[in-house]
Amino acid sequence: MREIQLVARIRKLAQTSSPQPSIIKGIGDDCAVMRPRAAEDLVFTTDFVLEGRHFTLDTHSPGDIGHKALARSLSDLAAMGAEPVFCLVSLAFPGQLAGAWVNNFYKALVALATRFNMTLAGGDLSRFEKVVADVICCGRVPRGKALLRNGAKPKDGIFVTGELGGSAHGLAAKRGPAWRRHLRPEPRVAAGLALRTLGVSAAMDLSDGLSLDLHRLCLESNVSATIDSAIPISHGATLEQALHGGEDYELLFTASPRKRVPSKIGDLPVTQIGVIRHADRPGTVLFQGRRLHSGGFDHFA
Amino acid sequence: MREIQLVARIRKLAQTSSPQPSIIKGIGDDCAVMRPRAAEDLVFTTDFVLEGRHFTLDTHSPGDIGHKALARSLSDLAAMGAEPVFCLVSLAFPGQLAGAWVNNFYKALVALATRFNMTLAGGDLSRFEKVVADVICCGRVPRGKALLRNGAKPKDGIFVTGELGGSAHGLAAKRGPAWRRHLRPEPRVAAGLALRTLGVSAAMDLSDGLSLDLHRLCLESNVSATIDSAIPISHGATLEQALHGGEDYELLFTASPRKRVPSKIGDLPVTQIGVIRHADRPGTVLFQGRRLHSGGFDHFA
Repeated sequence: MREIQLVARIRKLAQTSSPQPSIIKGIGDDCAVMRPRAAEDLVFTTDFVLEGRHFTLDTHSPGDIGHKALARSLSDLAAMGAEPVFCLVSLAFPGQLAGAWVNNFYKALVALATRFNMTLAGGDLSRFEKVVADVICCGRVPRGKALLRNGAKPKDGIFVTGELGGSAHGLAAKRGPAWRRHLRPEPRVAAGLALRTLGVSAAMDLSDGLSLDLHRLCLESNVSATIDSAIPISHGATLEQALHGGEDYELLFTASPRKRVPSKIGDLPVTQIGVIRHADRPGTVLFQGRRLHSGGFDHFA
Repeated sequence: MREIQLVARIRKLAQTSSPQPSIIKGIGDDCAVMRPRAAEDLVFTTDFVLEGRHFTLDTHSPGDIGHKALARSLSDLAAMGAEPVFCLVSLAFPGQLAGAWVNNFYKALVALATRFNMTLAGGDLSRFEKVVADVICCGRVPRGKALLRNGAKPKDGIFVTGELGGSAHGLAAKRGPAWRRHLRPEPRVAAGLALRTLGVSAAMDLSDGLSLDLHRLCLESNVSATIDSAIPISHGATLEQALHGGEDYELLFTASPRKRVPSKIGDLPVTQIGVIRHADRPGTVLFQGRRLHSGGFDHFA
């Protein structure tokens, strides 16, 4: 298997991904070429998945890894209220995986991309002793309408979509629906678009755990937060997992008390869990009357 | 060192990079936000640099690696005739490098970005047992003006910028100017812009060696090529290194015989090395009357 054949195979697979008219040139040149529409902003994110950190080859199929690699980046687009446009995929792997393994990785990734009308437009390939994937996603929003982390104001309600702790619970249990959910997280793209239309004040995705992510949102907005309502806990998960567990990929957002936030977006429940406060110390999160430790996932703690 | 502190430090460094007015939101949110100008196309590329494949920690300083990581992607923008806009940097590394090493990596990367008026707008960080960097670059071209690989026509001249084989020679010698050049390649961004203005028929960058890259250009254009003039060989390099050595990051392009291609762009020499032919077998490259083996760097050969 030479690189040129491998690229030809991926290019063929990519042609089955959703054709976005804005992609003028996909795989096969030095760069992908994209034609922006009038009056749109573009948003960009990139996320690693690394063997031994985010998955192991024993526990995750190539399809699981391809799905997760794209889902992590798509979740960031969802958090901006953006519509997916295209992705680039950098993949490094041991030579012996160049056949079926790599094929199944791309198949699952392209299947997820297609569900969200997204083109696989390019990337990079390399041989390496471990599997390393870095997925770049581009999305579009109407000009000036991206949902940012820095817009939360005192008295805004704090909300989450879905239920929390399920991914951490799944990772601990390694079986059942929670494990399947950990393996194949569902990016909340439609919910993000709905929140953008509603006009929420700030949003981000819950990738590293509520305690750490809410702390980050508060820091960016220069406010503090009080969690004063029941957190929606995923079936079988503990409160600890719901507060600090990573990789739920639900959305965390804030909205003015004047906004009527629906209790569901499609089938996805939306729950108010607290209120934004003036900051004595920006970033502080109070839970049950005490300062909550930002115990979420920290690569460098 | 916690992730939040590390991000704060990189964010501060990124603010010293060239501020591009089109970047509405840089580091600190789920995505970077960019506002395209009217009537421009955007080009995107991503490139790995991997410990043990593209560098070793013994032979390359963190500054060398930061420079090279960005230079590889910038070279792809140059090949499209694009003006650099922003980059995203995904970096994974062992925890003990989180201090000075990571700082010096970003400093060199930001210094190169700033030379090309480019903003460091985001990325991802992770801990990993090896150093892995993936750099995404975005550039702009006037609508419809990107230089592609697929425009070469029979009778077009084949040209290269600069001299070839220097990087392979440097890698073999591990000292002297050729080694310094291997460590700190210079992306040909200004030459790419000049070629776009001139209106050349096809272009790509020489990252994997002339024999393989010219083969790829011919495949995309459905033509063949004859190398019938002297190849400009870097001082001290062999013909073998000039034909098959990777990482020169010079530009390879074709131009209609009606175009007057200058012999220099700024200080950079431009040399005609051959002519495009009708394809009996697309992708064939003739050298000294024989078919040239595509012996350049192939990750999966």
